[in-house]
Amino acid sequence: MGQIIPLQTQMAREIAEIPHAVQRFIDQGLDRCIALGQSLRDDPPPAILTCARGTSDQAALYFKYLVESRAGIPVASLGPSVSSVYGASLHARNMVCLTVSQSGGSPDLVELQRAAASGGARIIALLNTLESPVGRIASDVIDLKAGREEAVAATKSFVCSLVAIAAIVGAMTENDALLDGIRALPATLDTAIAAPPANALKAIAAAPSVLTVSRGPAMAAAGEAALKLKETCQFHAEAYSAAEIMHGPSVLAGRGVAVLAFVPDDAGRASVVEACQAMQVAGAPALRIDSENGDIAVPTAAEAALTPIIQIAAFYRLVETLSVQLGCDPDHPPGLSKVTKTV
Amino acid sequence: MGQIIPLQTQMAREIAEIPHAVQRFIDQGLDRCIALGQSLRDDPPPAILTCARGTSDQAALYFKYLVESRAGIPVASLGPSVSSVYGASLHARNMVCLTVSQSGGSPDLVELQRAAASGGARIIALLNTLESPVGRIASDVIDLKAGREEAVAATKSFVCSLVAIAAIVGAMTENDALLDGIRALPATLDTAIAAPPANALKAIAAAPSVLTVSRGPAMAAAGEAALKLKETCQFHAEAYSAAEIMHGPSVLAGRGVAVLAFVPDDAGRASVVEACQAMQVAGAPALRIDSENGDIAVPTAAEAALTPIIQIAAFYRLVETLSVQLGCDPDHPPGLSKVTKTV
Repeated sequence: MGQIIPLQTQMAREIAEIPHAVQRFIDQGLDRCIALGQSLRDDPPPAILTCARGTSDQAALYFKYLVESRAGIPVASLGPSVSSVYGASLHARNMVCLTVSQSGGSPDLVELQRAAASGGARIIALLNTLESPVGRIASDVIDLKAGREEAVAATKSFVCSLVAIAAIVGAMTENDALLDGIRALPATLDTAIAAPPANALKAIAAAPSVLTVSRGPAMAAAGEAALKLKETCQFHAEAYSAAEIMHGPSVLAGRGVAVLAFVPDDAGRASVVEACQAMQVAGAPALRIDSENGDIAVPTAAEAALTPIIQIAAFYRLVETLSVQLGCDPDHPPGLSKVTKTV
Repeated sequence: MGQIIPLQTQMAREIAEIPHAVQRFIDQGLDRCIALGQSLRDDPPPAILTCARGTSDQAALYFKYLVESRAGIPVASLGPSVSSVYGASLHARNMVCLTVSQSGGSPDLVELQRAAASGGARIIALLNTLESPVGRIASDVIDLKAGREEAVAATKSFVCSLVAIAAIVGAMTENDALLDGIRALPATLDTAIAAPPANALKAIAAAPSVLTVSRGPAMAAAGEAALKLKETCQFHAEAYSAAEIMHGPSVLAGRGVAVLAFVPDDAGRASVVEACQAMQVAGAPALRIDSENGDIAVPTAAEAALTPIIQIAAFYRLVETLSVQLGCDPDHPPGLSKVTKTV
């Protein structure tokens, strides 16, 4: 864990803490996730609901792709408004509702959890703040152990939430390679947060807007990257599935939009690489965060499910550097606050 | 049905056909949708899956919000890649899988349907092309009756798919006001597709990029609008929930991004209006498609669930006009084809 990182910003300091935070989570929280995953394996719910917003909703998306593609259980990502605005009663007998939140404080998440619990669901919450309204309602709480996070742009708490999810799914699917891979993550993450290549920074800085592209579980990294480009660089960036690119966004290639691809190490790899090439042919600069000859090179994950975790850590270093280079303040995005309370 | 519309483009001709297509669907397809909705009411599935891409996936989103908020049944929007790329077996006993597709021809939809059927789901397909690979697998097929659609940018088939979904949900929830409202739609749509105000066109044309904003079922209109702005105007537009705006995108206000809000007539109205005002205060031009003093005025829907249908019809007229004004060809977006086949 010996990266030397310029630590002018709080965000940079928190990125530098990622490997330590993950190690702490492995030491203190992994067993609980494994036990939880085993309970879901022994008594599988017919469907799982997720309840989250913003960055945490990208963690919920990671969970959705992993659980659907590896355990075959449908996962419904519920808009909290279903309960908080529209007042729906939910039918959720024998289901599980997974809430992900840093603060556990937003009223709409509390409302949706209550509706899911009243409808019969078991509530599992991944939180970085246990003593919170969300935490008090949940049947099972996983402490993300990311430590105090002060930058508005969440980084280490998001990485810890992905690690927790990978562990739950690893145990659900009895995948020892995945669980072993998690234990090796801190050293890999230490390498991943190396300084980003100047060329990549330049290419993104020059684009009027950005499409972050991926497929499968790594869509969570693409989604989180689009949010962070907005928050910290005031860049219009949007996440897109490589498959959906051909349903419309490809027409933006001629308009200067840049592509930043999170290339998965799983069966989705080929289609993401192809989408990159198609966008490049159509005139868009396309950069790959990839373990194989990536424009932004990242270490190879021990198991493909872990690739997005390594990729997002590398991206965090890149986006913080870009933000400072562009003269933005990544710690204080205009008009945003650390704890977002929505109804 | 007496709007006089300049019909230089195929897209304009197909927009002009919307009221007729909806009338045809009401005459020939409504009863079937009502029977289907009644069967779901009598034997409610524990969860519902959706299977769609592109514009059709926005129809699936409309279904998801309506069913969750009005019938309380969780709806999981499945990425077709779960089966087509990752080869998952799905557990879907007693569930329903709703597929929405114009052509019924994309291999990934077929794969996902097969997996859902093998897992025990009843497959319902909303199609504009019955004789298709998707149609052959489905247990129940609803013919959208939109007629031949030649412009790459789908319009009337999307509107018919929303009408079919509203009818299914109306019958599921025994909502006669909704079913009666559907029967009154053709006349309302005829008014909705009036020429858009020049001011609104100017404000959007001047923005470097656009956020389409809404909440609840009208998010489907916002999502479809973002797609159409990409396809027909080569504009980077992204759909955002009014609640999520405060989790990041609000920082774009100072960067010239314009807001186009689809203001719902339901409990989500206040938060969309507030998000518009907040973005306007922060410096973004914000336009409202709204039945009450909208910048783009639309007729009031007989039932709030129908508002997005009226709004998207009005938007289609706006975006086609904008496309032609900008010198684009809405009928032939560069690099896109009518039938998108993805794996």
